[in-house]
Amino acid sequence: MPYQAERLPREKVLRDPVHNYIYIEYRLIMDLINTREFQRLRRIKQLGTASLVFHGAEHTRFTHSLGVYEITRQICDNFQRNFPTHTPGDGLWDDNERLVALCAALLHDIGHGPYSHTFEHIFKTDHEAITVAILTSPDTEVNQVLRSVSPEFPAQVASVIQKTYPNPQVVQMISSQIDADRMDYLLRDAYHTGTKYGTFDLTRILRVMRPYQDGIAFEISGMHAVEDYIMSRFQMYQQIYFHPVSRAMEVILSHLLQRAKEDYESPEAVNEAAAPYLLFPFFKHEFNLEDYLLLDDGTLTTYFAHWRQSSDPILADLSHRFLDRKPLKSVKFDEQSKAKLPELRQLIEKAGFNAEYYTDTNNSYDLPYDAYDPKMKKPLTQIELMQSDGQLVELSTVSALVSAITGKFSGDRRFFFPKEMLQPQSGNIELFDPIYESFQQHLHNDYII
Amino acid sequence: MPYQAERLPREKVLRDPVHNYIYIEYRLIMDLINTREFQRLRRIKQLGTASLVFHGAEHTRFTHSLGVYEITRQICDNFQRNFPTHTPGDGLWDDNERLVALCAALLHDIGHGPYSHTFEHIFKTDHEAITVAILTSPDTEVNQVLRSVSPEFPAQVASVIQKTYPNPQVVQMISSQIDADRMDYLLRDAYHTGTKYGTFDLTRILRVMRPYQDGIAFEISGMHAVEDYIMSRFQMYQQIYFHPVSRAMEVILSHLLQRAKEDYESPEAVNEAAAPYLLFPFFKHEFNLEDYLLLDDGTLTTYFAHWRQSSDPILADLSHRFLDRKPLKSVKFDEQSKAKLPELRQLIEKAGFNAEYYTDTNNSYDLPYDAYDPKMKKPLTQIELMQSDGQLVELSTVSALVSAITGKFSGDRRFFFPKEMLQPQSGNIELFDPIYESFQQHLHNDYII
Amino acid sequence: MPYQAERLPREKVLRDPVHNYIYIEYRLIMDLINTREFQRLRRIKQLGTASLVFHGAEHTRFTHSLGVYEITRQICDNFQRNFPTHTPGDGLWDDNERLVALCAALLHDIGHGPYSHTFEHIFKTDHEAITVAILTSPDTEVNQVLRSVSPEFPAQVASVIQKTYPNPQVVQMISSQIDADRMDYLLRDAYHTGTKYGTFDLTRILRVMRPYQDGIAFEISGMHAVEDYIMSRFQMYQQIYFHPVSRAMEVILSHLLQRAKEDYESPEAVNEAAAPYLLFPFFKHEFNLEDYLLLDDGTLTTYFAHWRQSSDPILADLSHRFLDRKPLKSVKFDEQSKAKLPELRQLIEKAGFNAEYYTDTNNSYDLPYDAYDPKMKKPLTQIELMQSDGQLVELSTVSALVSAITGKFSGDRRFFFPKEMLQPQSGNIELFDPIYESFQQHLHNDYII
Amino acid sequence: MPYQAERLPREKVLRDPVHNYIYIEYRLIMDLINTREFQRLRRIKQLGTASLVFHGAEHTRFTHSLGVYEITRQICDNFQRNFPTHTPGDGLWDDNERLVALCAALLHDIGHGPYSHTFEHIFKTDHEAITVAILTSPDTEVNQVLRSVSPEFPAQVASVIQKTYPNPQVVQMISSQIDADRMDYLLRDAYHTGTKYGTFDLTRILRVMRPYQDGIAFEISGMHAVEDYIMSRFQMYQQIYFHPVSRAMEVILSHLLQRAKEDYESPEAVNEAAAPYLLFPFFKHEFNLEDYLLLDDGTLTTYFAHWRQSSDPILADLSHRFLDRKPLKSVKFDEQSKAKLPELRQLIEKAGFNAEYYTDTNNSYDLPYDAYDPKMKKPLTQIELMQSDGQLVELSTVSALVSAITGKFSGDRRFFFPKEMLQPQSGNIELFDPIYESFQQHLHNDYII
Repeated sequence: MPYQAERLPREKVLRDPVHNYIYIEYRLIMDLINTREFQRLRRIKQLGTASLVFHGAEHTRFTHSLGVYEITRQICDNFQRNFPTHTPGDGLWDDNERLVALCAALLHDIGHGPYSHTFEHIFKTDHEAITVAILTSPDTEVNQVLRSVSPEFPAQVASVIQKTYPNPQVVQMISSQIDADRMDYLLRDAYHTGTKYGTFDLTRILRVMRPYQDGIAFEISGMHAVEDYIMSRFQMYQQIYFHPVSRAMEVILSHLLQRAKEDYESPEAVNEAAAPYLLFPFFKHEFNLEDYLLLDDGTLTTYFAHWRQSSDPILADLSHRFLDRKPLKSVKFDEQSKAKLPELRQLIEKAGFNAEYYTDTNNSYDLPYDAYDPKMKKPLTQIELMQSDGQLVELSTVSALVSAITGKFSGDRRFFFPKEMLQPQSGNIELFDPIYESFQQHLHNDYII
Repeated sequence: MPYQAERLPREKVLRDPVHNYIYIEYRLIMDLINTREFQRLRRIKQLGTASLVFHGAEHTRFTHSLGVYEITRQICDNFQRNFPTHTPGDGLWDDNERLVALCAALLHDIGHGPYSHTFEHIFKTDHEAITVAILTSPDTEVNQVLRSVSPEFPAQVASVIQKTYPNPQVVQMISSQIDADRMDYLLRDAYHTGTKYGTFDLTRILRVMRPYQDGIAFEISGMHAVEDYIMSRFQMYQQIYFHPVSRAMEVILSHLLQRAKEDYESPEAVNEAAAPYLLFPFFKHEFNLEDYLLLDDGTLTTYFAHWRQSSDPILADLSHRFLDRKPLKSVKFDEQSKAKLPELRQLIEKAGFNAEYYTDTNNSYDLPYDAYDPKMKKPLTQIELMQSDGQLVELSTVSALVSAITGKFSGDRRFFFPKEMLQPQSGNIELFDPIYESFQQHLHNDYII
Repeated sequence: MPYQAERLPREKVLRDPVHNYIYIEYRLIMDLINTREFQRLRRIKQLGTASLVFHGAEHTRFTHSLGVYEITRQICDNFQRNFPTHTPGDGLWDDNERLVALCAALLHDIGHGPYSHTFEHIFKTDHEAITVAILTSPDTEVNQVLRSVSPEFPAQVASVIQKTYPNPQVVQMISSQIDADRMDYLLRDAYHTGTKYGTFDLTRILRVMRPYQDGIAFEISGMHAVEDYIMSRFQMYQQIYFHPVSRAMEVILSHLLQRAKEDYESPEAVNEAAAPYLLFPFFKHEFNLEDYLLLDDGTLTTYFAHWRQSSDPILADLSHRFLDRKPLKSVKFDEQSKAKLPELRQLIEKAGFNAEYYTDTNNSYDLPYDAYDPKMKKPLTQIELMQSDGQLVELSTVSALVSAITGKFSGDRRFFFPKEMLQPQSGNIELFDPIYESFQQHLHNDYII
Repeated sequence: MPYQAERLPREKVLRDPVHNYIYIEYRLIMDLINTREFQRLRRIKQLGTASLVFHGAEHTRFTHSLGVYEITRQICDNFQRNFPTHTPGDGLWDDNERLVALCAALLHDIGHGPYSHTFEHIFKTDHEAITVAILTSPDTEVNQVLRSVSPEFPAQVASVIQKTYPNPQVVQMISSQIDADRMDYLLRDAYHTGTKYGTFDLTRILRVMRPYQDGIAFEISGMHAVEDYIMSRFQMYQQIYFHPVSRAMEVILSHLLQRAKEDYESPEAVNEAAAPYLLFPFFKHEFNLEDYLLLDDGTLTTYFAHWRQSSDPILADLSHRFLDRKPLKSVKFDEQSKAKLPELRQLIEKAGFNAEYYTDTNNSYDLPYDAYDPKMKKPLTQIELMQSDGQLVELSTVSALVSAITGKFSGDRRFFFPKEMLQPQSGNIELFDPIYESFQQHLHNDYII
């Protein structure tokens, strides 16, 4: 039997709190899960600093990746049962696409590293490029497993993730405005945070999904379920992903890594005991795939534990603030009140903080949904509803709710600063009092005025 | 206002997936949560290697500690509302005990380190002693916060955890056969693993709990709820905590730490780059509290990542097996088949494995419930049911189910060995075939025969 | 102790699937639950014909009424703990209002009869007037219990339900755009139907509710939770309450009761055996409160069981269709296609159906949310959010989502007709074929064209 | 296409709170659901008087029957996917048995009437015989649908329910100690009561079920899941099904029907207006199937509403007690204290109650599990576990927990009496005081002493 068709002697299951069980039928999938690169995802949190706000949300990218696989598997099962292709090009589902879809689903996040967003920003890495490298580089275990299917298979799986794979149904399963990836993370993040906002009716959405010539559409009878999913997604962004305290911890992390990079760029630093050897390639921007694969959340926090005893007081303090969860405070500002930022930064400097490391601004904006627009840099695949006569209509044209948020960015701009500006430490109150007062006069109702 | 009575301006809540919200009314509790020692628990998994079997169970001791606090808070609320003391010694609830109970609940696990069970075994640490040290040593932030209540307060909280506190109601809230600790971990571990076994009716149990002279009793009308809790606990042990693959990963971890200790005991080891500085005090068994507090799960796995490139092939291989999740296989044995172990170990050596590092035996036995027995080393506090006339009866005398498991240990003894003994690697099949065959003939129906 | 302050010797609880437990502290509440009029609600389904579509939704108004009581109790607890009044008129919560609020919550639906909406329409009853009558008429057990508090108490409770009670906080708890009534039915109907749409974060909403001078406001930090509630409500209307098959069964019920009324208006009808004695007062529109209280869902279906053997073929057939769940079919129409209705009705007559009893139109429109508008017949109490400086803002001015649906009715207009028009019965196909064909040509994509 | 193989154009789903969706693939199943006899189950509560204690439990036999169908469907799917027969007699699953299994599952309760247990006892009906009659009598719609498969099909389906069908796999799916019927009602009753006791891991049990020569076995790896199911069942009996208040309401119902039967046996009764025509055939014990099918819960309560105005004070009072939920009180007794019952009855008579109608004894005993015993009147099918070598072991031989309750009846014997004996009504206190005192002296700790 060719490897790709080889089934496990008995279907295997992994217990999962969101999907109850993850079902694994193919040896190929089991082998991918058992690779070193995939197991590494167990040590990288899905939500990064948000777990410092929602303490239950300590789940990892490993868990999420299995969930995306499982949803994709269910979509394939449903398509094969209800919409199997009869003749090539009839717009129905060709089950020969199943394996490439399942592998792309499982591996779509394999290139993520610790606290990806911040890490990438400081060290100029790119998790998407690394994902492709892990799939296609002959040195990885993942590549070795994929190659057993065929020499072209690794590149095919990569092309699904890169959205260049010829079959749009497969691409849209994994990445579109309503795909297996988003559906899993919304449900999973809601489950582990304990919030209710991310809940939508997965079973119903899966039931109304159907393949068509140009991708995946949704039967119009399921319009409200799709609408409800869009709303859930919107709420999760507003309530969880954009939480100001989570962003405040990200600011600290970012400044901490930046500071370390600067510190270690001077050669004498390297000689000290307990040096962050695993980060050196990144400080020098001379890393290879193997260097990258040695990193995980624990690597960073281990170095932070070293650094909290550093002779650089800023590095030590930021390490302490991150490890011991001392978030910066924040307020919103707008185009007009933005002009006040320099003045606020000056006051903060006067109070004894290096404004470069202890303040920041951060915009969190999400586009909850948009129709296809060829003028966009990355045009989105719009959500299509299929009427009983087979005609498609775009979601926002029939849903007043979705229409209300279509194409509109939602989020806020925040200025971050040390908590001490609001709660002066005892000991120096008299000295700094006027500074604090001036500072606080600029804040009202969570806004800079 | 004295510090201990100081309430937050507005009750604070933390979102929790198990209890919905954790309610915090006292500044003291908030300050304890914000200590460095408590925040460190965010980096120590509650279930250790079991998260390698139940992938959703990535929650930490931080989360669990908050849950134990919350259950204790609810018990205090209930006692104060329904059973407030009128005269000293009347066996009812004295709400002055609330703070000591809440602090003990929150801090009962503060001395845990990474993969505690295994770590303690190899490095001769003792998490209970360390808990007491963290509470009572003047250098910790926790001690500093507790001292603000009164100079004796740290020792009082410690004595609750050590079970020497004079009020048995407070002690039994935190540790007895049905306490806030167990109730939280059963519910939480069930939630995150996604299993149903740990579910019992917490609200009902809290409702039938009541203080009496010698501790805490349960109204007899709630007998079945208590019974159901005992059964849930039994099932969680059988299904989750004793899972053979989780124990197999623990065996690897244990041998890995043992090997590292032996390797680094030779002085030349210390000079190599990327040395495990944070572990040195433990290798030498000369650690202090500060050394201990720098460790977490990530520290260990970071060193394992270093070691996977070690020149010691056993250290490198065990590091790889742990990080990449390559569990040993196992079978059960009994007193009789135990005699076969030397022969099995010999075959394993013949197949090329160092039996000291690649095999082990492990017993997992739990006492699901027992009545008080003064002859035991650590006599258990039995569960008392209160009848409508106020008389107490011990649980197992009225519950046939509980009686069936009272005083009976349940679990198994397993022999662990490399998976390769069952699935020979290609390349050397011919050579080793007879060895594998001999080995496998000793196994039948998951037992050594 | 005055009756109103009399507490049960021990707080009593009723197990509830939505709120876990319903807590009862006052004897007054227990006595009200035990009245004949309240127990009667056990025999009246909450969702009427919707239970014929969502088979799990067989819960009753009894259950819902307890839930509204419980939410109100929690609101009072929260208000009393966090916002107790200090001086009269300070806009905070006066806990002397608790009892009137709890009673109004418990009794707000006590005047409902079987399949209220339809029954009222045919027999010109008015459940709100009957609610007031049950509370204030000296003959009811409810009135007797309420009178024990004070002679004015029954009228006070009634005035809360009538929205004329002077304290707007109490009124808004029970009836406003986000009140205990709506919050309970959304959660409960979602639970029993098994749909996910009605889920919102009750605990969070209760946490951000607060009394103010003119009623109840919500802290702005909870804006998204309120928004999510509005969305849930919207979805429940679209998906559950407006379900076309549920409305189709209501059409049958309505025509069936209408037909019975007409049949029994002729005096000879009364003489037949198994006459619907309990309905006579309603046929004659000469009913009193006692007559009304004898009715429940089972009374109606018992008479339908009699009538399925009636000599009036239309009465018999409609009874059969209702009891055996044979819904009419339906399609949407709009202002333009409305002109086709006479033609469709003619075709239906030609196919042998009396169009008066076998067709109907039905509009289902809901106003998901609106701001206060003094020009409306019944102006709505708008949802106010309180900023950190105490200023109020109306919800739709800060929520883009809510703004999108504010003041906009949502729903559809449907034309109902016999299923036989789409699925001709065997036996008469040839004869009627051209009729069916003509009929079906008017339908496309669930619309009349 | 033969009718039995005819699939719906698109698989239909019914939303279900327990199983999420009920999936219907065959036209045959849809047609059975649409029969009059099956729709009638919508008007018969699953739990009878227990809904008067657990107010959420208002679900019906209709809902449960769909659930049993769904579980059976999942078992068949699993068997067909994993254990399809290769050669006749190989002990594996023959999917030609699917339809008979599905129909038997759906229809197994079709013969139930209102408050079956009590009704049967008073009127000597037999729901199992009626089930067979509904399946096999040519007059029913169910029979007509089943006959479309083949002339023998109705009798085949009946034989599964009667346990005489030749294939033991099919029989055990529907009735054994762990069958689709029990699994559905435990989960469903737990869901609607809101209790946690009935929860067990359905998915896991379905996964370890497998066909073998003599029926259905469970893989030994699932032993604890089966054990947990047995414990859940045990708890549900103790906590829900045997609840004393539910049994107290059953006692009232029973005496009420008995009294009505006696009253209406005298011919003059029949002439009164509002006579209970639908019950006459049962009063006279001359009923036919059509008479039986006209009854439902609402029929009985409608007559009770008539009777509460009856001239027979006992009939009127018992009707009032049932409709308005005024349960009798009860205490436990044993073989010894049984001797006190006559004395207690005398005191009750002295207090003015007819002991025949106002007192009763009731035993509730359940056999939670037993091994097969050929000496029993109806020997039970024991639960078999399959080891990895294919050998079977009986559950209680490997489970200490199950062994503890195997073959042991659990439950209690209670004596029921009017609540007034404990809470004298005002007005007659002086007169009856000594009677009440004597009575109460016999009760202690919920027992007769």
